Amino acid sequence: MSSKLRILPLGGCGEIGKNMTVIEYENEILIVDAGIMFPENDMLGVDAIIPDYSYLNDKMDKVKGVLITHGHEDHVGALPHLMRDVKAPLYATPLTLGLIEVKLQRAGLRQNVQLREIQAGDAFAVGRFMIEPFHVTHSIPDCVGFGITTPVGLIVHTGDYKFDHTPEDDWPPDFAKLAEFSARNVLCLLGDSTNAERPGWTPSERVIVEAFDELFSQAEGRIIVASFASLISRVKQVAEAAERHGRRLAIAGRSMRDNIKMAQRLGYLDLPEGLLIDIDQANNLPAHKVAIMATGSQGEPTSVLGRMARGRHNQLRVREGDTIVISAHTIPGNEEMTHRIINRMFQQGASVLYEGNAHVHVSGHGAREEMKLMINLIRPKYFIPVHGELRHLTAHRKMAIELGIPDEHIAVVENGHVVEFTPNSMKVLDRLPGGYVFVQGSAVGDIGFPIVRERDELAQAGFYTAVVRLNDNADLLTAPKIVSEGFMSKSNVEELYEGACEIIANTASQYGMKSRHLDSQIQGALKRYLYAETGLRPRVFVVIN
Amino acid sequence: MSSKLRILPLGGCGEIGKNMTVIEYENEILIVDAGIMFPENDMLGVDAIIPDYSYLNDKMDKVKGVLITHGHEDHVGALPHLMRDVKAPLYATPLTLGLIEVKLQRAGLRQNVQLREIQAGDAFAVGRFMIEPFHVTHSIPDCVGFGITTPVGLIVHTGDYKFDHTPEDDWPPDFAKLAEFSARNVLCLLGDSTNAERPGWTPSERVIVEAFDELFSQAEGRIIVASFASLISRVKQVAEAAERHGRRLAIAGRSMRDNIKMAQRLGYLDLPEGLLIDIDQANNLPAHKVAIMATGSQGEPTSVLGRMARGRHNQLRVREGDTIVISAHTIPGNEEMTHRIINRMFQQGASVLYEGNAHVHVSGHGAREEMKLMINLIRPKYFIPVHGELRHLTAHRKMAIELGIPDEHIAVVENGHVVEFTPNSMKVLDRLPGGYVFVQGSAVGDIGFPIVRERDELAQAGFYTAVVRLNDNADLLTAPKIVSEGFMSKSNVEELYEGACEIIANTASQYGMKSRHLDSQIQGALKRYLYAETGLRPRVFVVIN
Repeated sequence: MSSKLRILPLGGCGEIGKNMTVIEYENEILIVDAGIMFPENDMLGVDAIIPDYSYLNDKMDKVKGVLITHGHEDHVGALPHLMRDVKAPLYATPLTLGLIEVKLQRAGLRQNVQLREIQAGDAFAVGRFMIEPFHVTHSIPDCVGFGITTPVGLIVHTGDYKFDHTPEDDWPPDFAKLAEFSARNVLCLLGDSTNAERPGWTPSERVIVEAFDELFSQAEGRIIVASFASLISRVKQVAEAAERHGRRLAIAGRSMRDNIKMAQRLGYLDLPEGLLIDIDQANNLPAHKVAIMATGSQGEPTSVLGRMARGRHNQLRVREGDTIVISAHTIPGNEEMTHRIINRMFQQGASVLYEGNAHVHVSGHGAREEMKLMINLIRPKYFIPVHGELRHLTAHRKMAIELGIPDEHIAVVENGHVVEFTPNSMKVLDRLPGGYVFVQGSAVGDIGFPIVRERDELAQAGFYTAVVRLNDNADLLTAPKIVSEGFMSKSNVEELYEGACEIIANTASQYGMKSRHLDSQIQGALKRYLYAETGLRPRVFVVIN
Repeated sequence: MSSKLRILPLGGCGEIGKNMTVIEYENEILIVDAGIMFPENDMLGVDAIIPDYSYLNDKMDKVKGVLITHGHEDHVGALPHLMRDVKAPLYATPLTLGLIEVKLQRAGLRQNVQLREIQAGDAFAVGRFMIEPFHVTHSIPDCVGFGITTPVGLIVHTGDYKFDHTPEDDWPPDFAKLAEFSARNVLCLLGDSTNAERPGWTPSERVIVEAFDELFSQAEGRIIVASFASLISRVKQVAEAAERHGRRLAIAGRSMRDNIKMAQRLGYLDLPEGLLIDIDQANNLPAHKVAIMATGSQGEPTSVLGRMARGRHNQLRVREGDTIVISAHTIPGNEEMTHRIINRMFQQGASVLYEGNAHVHVSGHGAREEMKLMINLIRPKYFIPVHGELRHLTAHRKMAIELGIPDEHIAVVENGHVVEFTPNSMKVLDRLPGGYVFVQGSAVGDIGFPIVRERDELAQAGFYTAVVRLNDNADLLTAPKIVSEGFMSKSNVEELYEGACEIIANTASQYGMKSRHLDSQIQGALKRYLYAETGLRPRVFVVIN
């Protein structure tokens, strides 16, 4: 019996194989990416979500290497967790490595991890796997996908990609390498499905340059561009537009400043002498001489833009005549926050350009025609659509079928499904238990859905706790004490106090101290009382002390 | 000094003048619409939002009439609140009146309200106001806007509208009336701004007919269409497609069933004999003979579609081969819920068509070219863009300026700004205090932002309450009791117990019973302890009993 190759896509909530992929052959394991996801609106209190890689718990010594496609959070954000357990080297291109280093440094892990710099076009062995990183274009420079030659066949993992013929760094995707893979017969393609519902071809990053040129030539006041801290290409575009139009550029937001410094140091961002100024300097220049890049494109309340919108930033205020550009796609779930900021900016007399009313952002992911090109360049035997919700994977599968990949050669799976390969077969195994892991504070995995559900209940109508002292006859020894929050106002709660005391006293004397569940009886009676009085259902607790 | 006309736009969160408009001249007041808004994701526990009409509190006897443009929730949903206080008659077209009757009946108010049926094209006096309802097209039949002749001039309120030349009921908008208003010199136009960012012209409802025809001729399994219960035009389209393609139609969801019955009774929905079947009958027919209309187009967990997605509907399960159509626009903030349902449907083997991948919905609101047409048909002296967030109103204003309305004749205001008119002037007064009113259970206005903020804090990391008994020397009399929820799991909380007791005992003996704020001291010490141990910040309460 020949050995089998196993591929296990993992991810955060909803999106499949987005954040991590495990590739296993006999006693050797490769990991591709280890990213983080942001929680959805109803995952209350959760800071971040990391893939559930408990499959690796008893196999950590088999891991031979960690390959990283690019430096965005959803591909590297979980490394500070993963690299506590993995002892194998981590492979990434220079910019990606720079971003990872900062991250590991902050987590106090820099010394523990062997970082190996790679280049697109390299070929190197990791265990019995032969790794060939190939250049792809996205919205950050130095992105790669991976060709991985395994004893069972050649796997191609696209990473995040678009086919941008005119990228910001003038380095187009490596079509020749993809064609070469094809000639070597690709066993399985793992392809980015993000934009599987978007028809056509994603515009080049170059169209943003034109949009910014128009904007910079027309705006009379300051120009403030918000984007992701890691969108280095966008920083380059804004910087160049500022330079061309005689404005100086200030950077607001520490993460953005750190990333820019690093990109400059590594030669990915070549800014003219004197272009960058600090915010105080910017505040002393005439408005038409100033451009500012800031964090906050998702409406995050603690970001620079979020604080500016509420008048809470200590150096920057919105001024009448400002042009504010939100140069990013609003991630589903963040619409309300983003729109609130936009409305607040308009309220304060600024113009706001964003995806709703201007072309100030292009996607970093290829659209349908690009996905078709990828499939046809590679012509894989088997296909696993990844990076997307089930609706995207399903759309990607349909496209592949139209291109002649047989339906039974396509595996639309969810996170935690192992897909097993021989040179001539693909089989989807049962889904592993577990799902994704919530991170909050220093708690990794301790907060699960049961706790989140409790928070959700508390969020509906708060809580109402009665602390009760009774004597042996179940008479009240002292007046009950009430602790309540999130239910109603202090004065409303006070109005309910007398009635609550009566309920407590009556229930206690009705059931007596010998009742085994006197606290539950009082709890039930209080719940009914509060609901009858208010129509609300706070969580009710009773402590008999 | 001549008397002035006052217009006061009111609304729920974010959108301006969407849900209610107050028009006042001397001692007479008109109200246009009284709608409800759904809370945003971070308005925890809130059921609904109604406009804050406290401006009327001491003026209720001046209200001469309530005019309703159409029967959607965001225009009639607050009537069960408003009509407790308003004694004046309510004017609406037949279908709208039918929907309102159901609503008032449920609130036990049917007998208290004088309902007056009106028709588009009528002209009638309410106090010194002359009211002329005019027909507009939208996504529900029997919609009107209002021409309101006041002693100061003619006001035109568009209501919700699109210019649909081929609407479902073959009754196009009344262009002639708009032109006639224009000839009489319109003092002020209040215009729907919903789609002010959408270029072009909103497609006719008729395009949906073609899309459904294609779908019905191709689908081999059941067809399940989800939409709003009040989208009567969509029901008509699905019913007719079912009829044409030999399917029977079942309706799932009480609100939808009620609305359809009412629309049939009033002659707005003429369904062929025998087309409608109940769900049990549908379950006994071959799949290709069945169409189902259901609630749940926004991913609401308790809707028919929401329960089907989770396998919790008692009559309907998703089957492989089902085609599920989400025929509605996802309201911002509902994306995550809707996408979750879509993914679950795909997971169960259904095809899902929705705005992301098919043309199964058209907006009920006109796009930019229609807004321009409205402005140019009316040519008002003054203009107040309404129905939209500030970003939409701002875009609408820009359009009006391009059409030659002077900027100083346009009032972009927020809810609660009174706009005051003489025949030759418009002035925006200071904003009234108040904002919008939260409704939860029977509490109307009792739950405000402070309570919602408390809930938000509880939602972050739950709470931790310690009940402590101390003797006169501040020694623990009994072991402290802990009540905690939403913080960490029971076993995690137990692991923290011993440490917490130590903190409590030490703090008590350090400060002693004479300390005025011993509870706060213990609270502070516990907070620090829990944060150090977990990195989380639950709300901490201490009861010394």
